[in-house]
Amino acid sequence: MTLELGSASDYGSIVSINIFVALLSACIVIGHLLEENRWMNESVTALLIGLCTGGVILLTTEGKNSRILVFSEDLFFIYLLPPIIFNAGFQVKKKQFFRNFMTIILFGAVGTLISFVIISLGAIGLFRRLGIEALEISDFLAIGAIFSATDSVCTLQVLNQDETPLLYSLVFGEGVVNDATSVVLFNAIQTLDLGHLDSLTVVKFVGNFLYLFATSTFLGVFAGLLSAYIIKKLYFGRHSTDREVAIMILMPYLSYMLAELLDLSGILTVFFCGIVMSHYTWHNVTESSRVTTKHAFATLSFIAEIFIFLYVGMDALDIEKWRLVSQSPVKIISISSIILGLVMVGRAAFVFPLSFVSNLSKKTGSQKITFREQVVIWWAGLMRGAVSIALAYNKFTNWGHTQLPSNAIMITSTIIVVLFSTLVFGILTKPLVILLLPKRHLTRELSISSDPPSPKAFLTPLLNNGQVSSEMEPGAETSQNILRPSSLRMLLTIPTRSVHHYWRKFDDAVMRPVFGGRGFMPYVPGSPTERSVHDGELA
Amino acid sequence: MTLELGSASDYGSIVSINIFVALLSACIVIGHLLEENRWMNESVTALLIGLCTGGVILLTTEGKNSRILVFSEDLFFIYLLPPIIFNAGFQVKKKQFFRNFMTIILFGAVGTLISFVIISLGAIGLFRRLGIEALEISDFLAIGAIFSATDSVCTLQVLNQDETPLLYSLVFGEGVVNDATSVVLFNAIQTLDLGHLDSLTVVKFVGNFLYLFATSTFLGVFAGLLSAYIIKKLYFGRHSTDREVAIMILMPYLSYMLAELLDLSGILTVFFCGIVMSHYTWHNVTESSRVTTKHAFATLSFIAEIFIFLYVGMDALDIEKWRLVSQSPVKIISISSIILGLVMVGRAAFVFPLSFVSNLSKKTGSQKITFREQVVIWWAGLMRGAVSIALAYNKFTNWGHTQLPSNAIMITSTIIVVLFSTLVFGILTKPLVILLLPKRHLTRELSISSDPPSPKAFLTPLLNNGQVSSEMEPGAETSQNILRPSSLRMLLTIPTRSVHHYWRKFDDAVMRPVFGGRGFMPYVPGSPTERSVHDGELA
Repeated sequence: MTLELGSASDYGSIVSINIFVALLSACIVIGHLLEENRWMNESVTALLIGLCTGGVILLTTEGKNSRILVFSEDLFFIYLLPPIIFNAGFQVKKKQFFRNFMTIILFGAVGTLISFVIISLGAIGLFRRLGIEALEISDFLAIGAIFSATDSVCTLQVLNQDETPLLYSLVFGEGVVNDATSVVLFNAIQTLDLGHLDSLTVVKFVGNFLYLFATSTFLGVFAGLLSAYIIKKLYFGRHSTDREVAIMILMPYLSYMLAELLDLSGILTVFFCGIVMSHYTWHNVTESSRVTTKHAFATLSFIAEIFIFLYVGMDALDIEKWRLVSQSPVKIISISSIILGLVMVGRAAFVFPLSFVSNLSKKTGSQKITFREQVVIWWAGLMRGAVSIALAYNKFTNWGHTQLPSNAIMITSTIIVVLFSTLVFGILTKPLVILLLPKRHLTRELSISSDPPSPKAFLTPLLNNGQVSSEMEPGAETSQNILRPSSLRMLLTIPTRSVHHYWRKFDDAVMRPVFGGRGFMPYVPGSPTERSVHDGELA
Repeated sequence: MTLELGSASDYGSIVSINIFVALLSACIVIGHLLEENRWMNESVTALLIGLCTGGVILLTTEGKNSRILVFSEDLFFIYLLPPIIFNAGFQVKKKQFFRNFMTIILFGAVGTLISFVIISLGAIGLFRRLGIEALEISDFLAIGAIFSATDSVCTLQVLNQDETPLLYSLVFGEGVVNDATSVVLFNAIQTLDLGHLDSLTVVKFVGNFLYLFATSTFLGVFAGLLSAYIIKKLYFGRHSTDREVAIMILMPYLSYMLAELLDLSGILTVFFCGIVMSHYTWHNVTESSRVTTKHAFATLSFIAEIFIFLYVGMDALDIEKWRLVSQSPVKIISISSIILGLVMVGRAAFVFPLSFVSNLSKKTGSQKITFREQVVIWWAGLMRGAVSIALAYNKFTNWGHTQLPSNAIMITSTIIVVLFSTLVFGILTKPLVILLLPKRHLTRELSISSDPPSPKAFLTPLLNNGQVSSEMEPGAETSQNILRPSSLRMLLTIPTRSVHHYWRKFDDAVMRPVFGGRGFMPYVPGSPTERSVHDGELA
């Protein structure tokens, strides 16, 4: 239905929606055809298609600026990022994640700070030699924060949760915490009084970070538990799939937006909301709601990921930015190279030392992070993505437009760093993982970490047979039994055993009776089958 | 993650998203609690909650205009309407719809024209007596078009497809065609040269309508078949649920936006795309994709419906409009009453005569529309909704703002008509249906029209048992066999038998081998089981 508003902006938005939806479909089909290719992945495909489309638009509009190309922070943070992070929490292997919790926090918080300091100091030292005088000290600190934000979305694409679960949980978990750290840093810098840098500022900063982390997590856990409670209390006996699925979509989004409103980290909130919902809420709904949410969340996240890469690719060729900097191509290339070098050094400076610290606390060899794994962790976190671009736009432009040459240089350098790291590092990651971690090694990891309770791990083998089976059916039970020896071994070898043990006791005694969860909704509690299922969970 | 943009509009948009998402969740929970209530339905609940929230916002902002309240046509036509209409096509009982195709076209096209003429002429005659001089002849014609658009969304809520399938398909099908007619009318009026009204204009108008109807339908069918072909060719053998579901979401949306771009009726396009996709594409995907799409589409449509009513309710209390017209409350009430009266007369003027015409072509008594059913059809189409509001905003405001008192009067009158018709007529529809069409009658209808091939009718009984079964399993086959006698009787009694017969032959020989469809993907074709399934479909 066209209302003939006669407005160019309205017609333009319809055109750009058409182009975007058509390109998304093309990316999905082409991504499918290239699936067998060891170099390509969906992100790189989307980025390349975006670049090509940007080029075509540039040629057809004869170099005029087109609104299709401009990157919008709002679109990114309000609509595209939440489904991706929520789905990651919803499908994450909880056991792996919580077992490596301390290492993840170490990498995400301390590591990001180290990386921030090195990039900022390096930029201050090296940029001055290139004759860039317009940047102030706060700009350099912002550059440090912008380029400390790893691209968790790209990591999800490149590493495989089933093949390299330990690395996946470390790198992705780090990405989520890293993101929160980058935002605190970035916001702290914007309001920092550089004249009064003393120990009080540092204490305040650390306190702010801890407050942010705790409240964001609490909000996410609360929203997840609330959804579980509502569905358990209201829908018991007369299920309505539409309402259940709607609540499971709206509650995490509400928690994310509420975190935004309260100046917390929405990404942390929605991630923990996803974890809690997969542990409780998901088990309280009907079988068809379970299948629907599992696949619908994965699909939404999939579409949002492709959208982001397409978007970054198309935005890269926005003519306005390039026109301002066309006088100084050498300068831009040197700045981009310096930043890329600093990113690599900054990441190496914390991955290897912190892995060493983390290994000290592990007693058995199989739990330690080997040197080869450290190299993969270092490499997989080098990519910079949409978060860096969004922060750079926020710092160096005024609603996507800039007239200052030094700001335009920073924006274009950011885009070059993001494109280069995603394309080159992204393409090389798959072969690198295959080279450094041969199959034998992967299988070892896999057998340790098989983790039935997450929706993904749980349903996939059953669904592949063309039938959806309820948890208590023989098929599921058998797969639980096969896994028991390794779960048992873990239980004996892991030092954090007692924490998990008490958590499980608390979960069974207090949480599950109130909020539901596996085995607590449609089946008789206390049966032998149910106990064996519980043993496999979050042990 | 909050980027501290320091911009009020950005903070404001986060606040409004929070309020909307929280209210949506509240509507779902309250709607569930009120489900047993015979007077209430989800639309009325959402409308009332929207009104209350609007009141609270009005009080807390002390009468200042708040951006949360303003109705946006773009939001409505680009994001909220497509999922609702697509889902309606996807879940519609295809047999009912096509059997009543001619009646639906008669009601939707001719009926809307009759209604348009009566409302326009009535407004010209009656408004002048009230002393409203500022309106021109084109304004009166626009009023006719605006109030000829029935609210298909509200109809979906009030009538039940399973209880009153004939009425549902008539009233809803009419709503879709009616919408296309209203838009052609509305656009034709905007460009009409009133000095040269001759037979050529009429011929042109009819030609334009037929062109619009044919091309929109073609585009929708083409998009549906394309999705079926892509999934059948590409994914056979190695299915990927995420990609399948993503394609099934993106293709219909692309068809809708393409129709918008080409000045066609996106609503017709996406409706037919839904019908084709449920007939072919849906059968080409994996079992889990089938469950996911069926429920995900229903949920999206459900959320969008609630959103619209909430939105209309909140928008109704926008202070800017009411301040302009506060001098003339009597005038507004008289205008609203006149319009409501004209809407009722205009609808009666075509429902009863056209039902008589339609009954002439039916040979058996059970196929005729009884007088009681005619009353329900008349009543259920009296509601005016978001489409009327969107058209009124388009005609009488400049991007949601107006300074002319006569325009403000028309906007407020439209809102009053929409609120009154939705609340009063909406609340009375359920009891009226129960009063006029007792259960015995409903059961008769139900047994005639049971229609296995649509996703809704097909999966619901199986899913309720807590297990998802593939089509060829015993359960599904049995339900097919039970339905055969009535399908058989229909086959003998319906005069359009030969058209259906040839369509089925064509479908089996040409369409299904190319585009897939039930029984043509994962199973051996030509088996006895498969034939019995085909007999039940679109017979």
